[in-house]
This record gives sequence, C-alpha cells and structure tokens, in this order.
Amino acid sequence: MSNRMHLAQRIQDLQPSAIRELLKHSKMPGVISLAGGIPSADLFDKEGLALATQSVVESRFNDAFQYGLTEGNSALREQLVGLCRQRGIETQSDRLLITSGSQQALDLLIRALADEGDVFVVERPTYLATLQILGLTGATVKSVGSDEHGMIVDELEELLQTTRIKCVYVVPTFGNPSGTTLSGERREKLVRLAAEHSFMIIEDDPYGEIAFTDRREKPLLQVATGMGCEEHVAYTSTFSKILAPGLRVGWIILPEWMKQKVAIIKQATDLHANAFAQSLVSAYLSLDRLAPQIALIRDAYQQKCLRLSQLLTEELGEHLTFNQPEGGMFLWATFREARDTTAWLQRTLEKGVVYVPGEFFFSDNPDRRTLRFSYATATDEQLVEAVSRLKAAL
Amino acid sequence: MSNRMHLAQRIQDLQPSAIRELLKHSKMPGVISLAGGIPSADLFDKEGLALATQSVVESRFNDAFQYGLTEGNSALREQLVGLCRQRGIETQSDRLLITSGSQQALDLLIRALADEGDVFVVERPTYLATLQILGLTGATVKSVGSDEHGMIVDELEELLQTTRIKCVYVVPTFGNPSGTTLSGERREKLVRLAAEHSFMIIEDDPYGEIAFTDRREKPLLQVATGMGCEEHVAYTSTFSKILAPGLRVGWIILPEWMKQKVAIIKQATDLHANAFAQSLVSAYLSLDRLAPQIALIRDAYQQKCLRLSQLLTEELGEHLTFNQPEGGMFLWATFREARDTTAWLQRTLEKGVVYVPGEFFFSDNPDRRTLRFSYATATDEQLVEAVSRLKAAL
Repeated sequence: MSNRMHLAQRIQDLQPSAIRELLKHSKMPGVISLAGGIPSADLFDKEGLALATQSVVESRFNDAFQYGLTEGNSALREQLVGLCRQRGIETQSDRLLITSGSQQALDLLIRALADEGDVFVVERPTYLATLQILGLTGATVKSVGSDEHGMIVDELEELLQTTRIKCVYVVPTFGNPSGTTLSGERREKLVRLAAEHSFMIIEDDPYGEIAFTDRREKPLLQVATGMGCEEHVAYTSTFSKILAPGLRVGWIILPEWMKQKVAIIKQATDLHANAFAQSLVSAYLSLDRLAPQIALIRDAYQQKCLRLSQLLTEELGEHLTFNQPEGGMFLWATFREARDTTAWLQRTLEKGVVYVPGEFFFSDNPDRRTLRFSYATATDEQLVEAVSRLKAAL
Repeated sequence: MSNRMHLAQRIQDLQPSAIRELLKHSKMPGVISLAGGIPSADLFDKEGLALATQSVVESRFNDAFQYGLTEGNSALREQLVGLCRQRGIETQSDRLLITSGSQQALDLLIRALADEGDVFVVERPTYLATLQILGLTGATVKSVGSDEHGMIVDELEELLQTTRIKCVYVVPTFGNPSGTTLSGERREKLVRLAAEHSFMIIEDDPYGEIAFTDRREKPLLQVATGMGCEEHVAYTSTFSKILAPGLRVGWIILPEWMKQKVAIIKQATDLHANAFAQSLVSAYLSLDRLAPQIALIRDAYQQKCLRLSQLLTEELGEHLTFNQPEGGMFLWATFREARDTTAWLQRTLEKGVVYVPGEFFFSDNPDRRTLRFSYATATDEQLVEAVSRLKAAL
C-alpha cells in the first residue's frame, strides 16, 4: 500500500506531465489502470513482428542501420500511399513524411505553423499532449465545445466572426478523450470554413481503423480533396495503435506548400525517423498481416468496450453518464452529481484503480465532473474488479 | 552526366538544407563523395547487430514494441553509466535521457535553454545542423574563432566583457568540421568561465572514441565535476558513429536542474526514443562487442585519414593547407589562394567529386577558402581518384 500512498501524495499536485508519471506507475502491483492510451500488448502480432524483424536483418540491413532520408524510407512511403487509399485518401509518396509517432507529427506541424500570437483552436475536451506542445510555443489556444457528434462547428463559425484563426486541431474519428466521431455534415462545414477563412486543419487520426461498426465518415483530407481545397488539411496517423507503439512510426500527409518547411524542422529535430523501425514496418506491411491484425484489435476492443459500458451502466449508472463509443480506445464519462474527478482519483487509487481526470483535456473552462477510461488493456476480470472498486470509492 | 549537371544547377542556390539534399545524392553513380559525415557501412558489425536483433525478439519483446519511459530504457541507461565511466565521466542513470540521436539531444537542449534574445556562442567554424536548430529559435548566435587547439577561449573571455551569454556550444574532441581538439588548458578555462559568468556549456561528443592516438583530453563534464561546477555542462553523445546511425540512439547527461524541463519537451516532441532501437543497443552492449568494434573503426578511419592527408599534400600541397586530424571523420582544409569553395563545388562535381563548402559551417564571417572533407566512406582507390579529380578541377 505504501507505493499507492506515495503516488496518491503526488496526485495532490497533479499536472499534465504528472499524468504521464502516473501512467508510468499504472503497472504498479495491484492497481488496475484504465488510464493510459496504451494498446494491449497481448494483441501484438508477435509472429508477424518476428518475421518482419528477421526480414530486415536478412534483406534490408543497410536501409535499417545507415542514415536515411529526412522524409522517410521510400519503400514505406509507397506502401503508405496504398494504405491511405484504403482509407479514402488519394495522395502521392512525395507528400508523405515519416515521423517518430504521431506525437512528433503534431510537434512538427505545430512548430511549422505557430508564430507568436497565432490562434490555435482545439476541441473541449482535446488530446492533452497537443495542449503540451501548444504550451511550448507562443501560440494562443482557444477552444470550442463538442457533443456526441464531435466538435460543434457552429461554435467555431461564431468564433471566426471575431477572431483570426491559424489552425484547428481535431481528432475527428473516435476522438481522444471523447470517443466521439465528427459527423459528415460537420466535416464538410469545417473544411468549407477552413477554405473561406484561410486556416489550416490538423487532422489527427490514430484510431480511425479501430471501428466497431461499418459506419465510416470520410477523412477530412478526403472531404477537402473533393472540395478542391486540400491545401488546408494536414493529415497524420500512426502505427502505434494498430501495430506497436514502441516502433514510433507515424506519418503526415502534407500540403505542397508545407512540405519543405516541415522537412527542414524534421532535419533539425532528429535528421530522420528511426531507420530500423521504418524498415521493420515496411517489411511487416509486405507480409499482408495488417488487415487481419486490425480486425483482431477491433474485435477485442469492441468486447472490452461493451463490457465496460455494461458494467458502468449497471453499477454506476445512477452516478455516471457516457456516450457509447463506436470505435477507438476511450470511454468519456461525466458525473451526474458535482464531483471533482482529480480529487476523486486519490480515493480510487487507494482502492486500486486509476483513470485520467477530465480537467487535463481542457485548455480552459474544464468540466471537473468528467473523466476518461481506457478499456484497451484491462482483462474482463479486471474490468469487473475495476468498476467494483470505483463504486467502493464513491 | 545529366544527373550531375542537374545537381550542379541546384548548387547555384545552395543553402544549408540544400547541403543535405546534396548528401542525398552523394551515392549518385560515378560521383565520389567526401561530403557527408556518414560512417562506413562496410564497417558495421553485421554479426553483432544480427545477434542483438535476435535477442530483442526472443527476450525483450515487450520492451521493444510497447510504449516506454520518456527518459529511456532503464537497462540501457544503466549500461550507459558504465560506458560514460570509461570516458572519465561519473554519473547516475537518473541523469541520463535517451534521445533520437545526438541531433535530437541538441534540439532538446537548445529548446530548453533558449529564450527570445538569449545569446548562444558557437565556434567558427561549427556543426551546421546546430546552426539550423538555433535558426529555428529566437536566440542570437555569436561566434568565436578557433585554431589548431580548438575554440579560442580567450576570445570568448573578451566577448564576456560586453555580452551576457546563455550557452556555449562546442564539439571539443575531433570537432566537426574542424577535426581539432580543444586543449586541456582551454577546457579548464572554458569551464571556469561558465561557472564565473553563469552560462551553460553544451558538450557535443559524437567522435571522442574515434581517436588515432593514445592522447586523450578529459571531457568538459569531467573537468567541471572536478571543479565542482558540473551544473554548467550538458554532455551528449551517440551510437551513430560507433555502431549504426539508422538506430538513432543518442543520450544526454543533464544537470539536475535541467532534467525535468528537458523531459517535458521530449514528451511533447515524440514521447520517447524508439523502444526497439533502445532494446537493440542494450542487447548489443551486453554482447561485449562494442570495444573491438570501436577499435576496428578507429584503425580503418586512421588509415583513410592518413591516406587522404598524404594525397592532399602530394597532389594539392601548393594550394591547400590543413591540420592533421588526430581522430574523428573530418579533414578541414583551406586554400592558400583566394578561392570560393562553394563556387568551386560546381566544377568538382562536374569532375565527379563532392565535399562540403566551408562557408556553411560559419554563423558569420565565413572563410570562403575553407572546405570539409570526410574520409570515412571512401575506399583507398576512391581517395586516389577523388584527389586526382580535385586537382583536375583547379
């Protein structure tokens, strides 16, 4: 119990970086973590990753160990053109830049776009690490609300009446932390506003493939291409949630006008993404195992999501409300009663269960009754026990 | 020849980023490159790297593929404490942060230190990618001269009379591009000035192990520790030149007061360095092959360096002067006569040989008669042919 108390102590002065510290401790013996956005290692394609690794050593040795191109491994970029096509996005390999995960994609894009005083707009709530990146720049962050259909684009339109906006950051599909998906109508309106008011959209899509239904919305980049204004969207995605996060391989599709600037920043930042990992992902894609692997993850996460939803409804339905996610890794809940979830975390930790308090996903006006659960790593037994512990902490 | 002419065309508007473009083309058929600071792939320890890779898949699978700690793989950090001890540096693993190569180390350190208008001091000449990073910040760059004993610290002392300095960046051992090593006396004076005037030193040490003689100068961090002012030095090094650059594994030893700030920036930048590559390097170090591998590189580069020096003296001695490097990968030469080496590059490229023109290594007051040769990748025959082509281009 002393470890837990130590951690509990630290939660008293919880800051976003302390949240990550918390995630580090999520494997603490006895504590069930519904906190981190961490994929389940049990689902990793061990055989496929081992085969791909072997293929790198045997037939891609120099690509893997020598310096590479700043934009990334050429074979991988060609393969990604095909993968993006399956998502509805038509692009060319020279528009792609391989990054060290989508976290770096966001850092590069924001550094390329943000000048002192520029206004960046995020959803309320939004991905907290993006708020961290924005905090390191001189940009001004404004937010618009969201509901079960994602960002409320009408609010953005209203903001545009008074404010010149440089960029809108959005996770449109199975959002983090909200779990919601931006509706087709709002997607079209968002892109139209970008063209009319000359702002950029950063479309962050790490979870789009992890869909529990057949319903799919078009990526914003596809919508923009259809409307002839694709220069207003930078699309980013990653292999972290569908293959393995330790590889740190993500990518950006850049509008023509941003290519050179982002490449220069990438060069200065770390020359190029890990050559070995890029070769490994390229070799893996050649094995044609990604589609069945995604299907496996999708089914497993859907089961876990349904289970957690059911348990929360049954055990905590009087206290908590939430939207049923249609994909991704997160369930976003709100207390019906007044309750500060940051303060409550200390009590749930004493009972042996952790989540991420909602306030850290807000750039302003936090709703302190909110919290984010991730269902990706817990087993069925752990989900049952976790909800029971949450109930005991009320 | 059309490829060469195309490249020659582009050299007319050569900028630092175009220099990297040039390096991309250094494998163009028929062109001998003495340009890039690229290690020789012929010297890679293929067997050792294959064994280490196998060991990662067999016994470090989750460490390699799952998310890791921002500061880096714990086992690797422990091993690096031992490796640093062999270099004369006593440290603890919690002072180490693993980076995506030393390029990222420099980016993180500069972002952590540089506020608008802060003065950073570099050598004249200095590593050009550091100038690129500094160019992305709001920092002011000033320079001090260097000679065969490295940075002229007396010039720095003079500058300190009139200027408040935030940080001095230096490659003290087998410098890039100069090939020179800062003398012991100057090291002590530099550290003393840092303590007296409260500035930071970034000690960039990618080449220190590639020594052609037994003469060694103490790392600045060791000197500072001896003088009780280690909080004024951040030391960075990398496996790029002694193992394999494609792995993008470097590290920083941070003073206590910088640890948290650098970790927060690292998190926002890319969460953590590539987990697979960190596991691979850790596995490699466990094989006890690094020391013989470094000995192999050292011998090979020494042979190449001696050969290039001899050829330059014999064939171009009337035109070029240079200091004999005692280690590293670079030979820095200066024309005796007036000659702009950027303009000359176009002619040498037509003859089929490239180098990096000296002006790009200067933050100001470039000496356009200078140029940098790398001898690391060329074979003996290529060195002979390259010098003959240079002569023909005079």
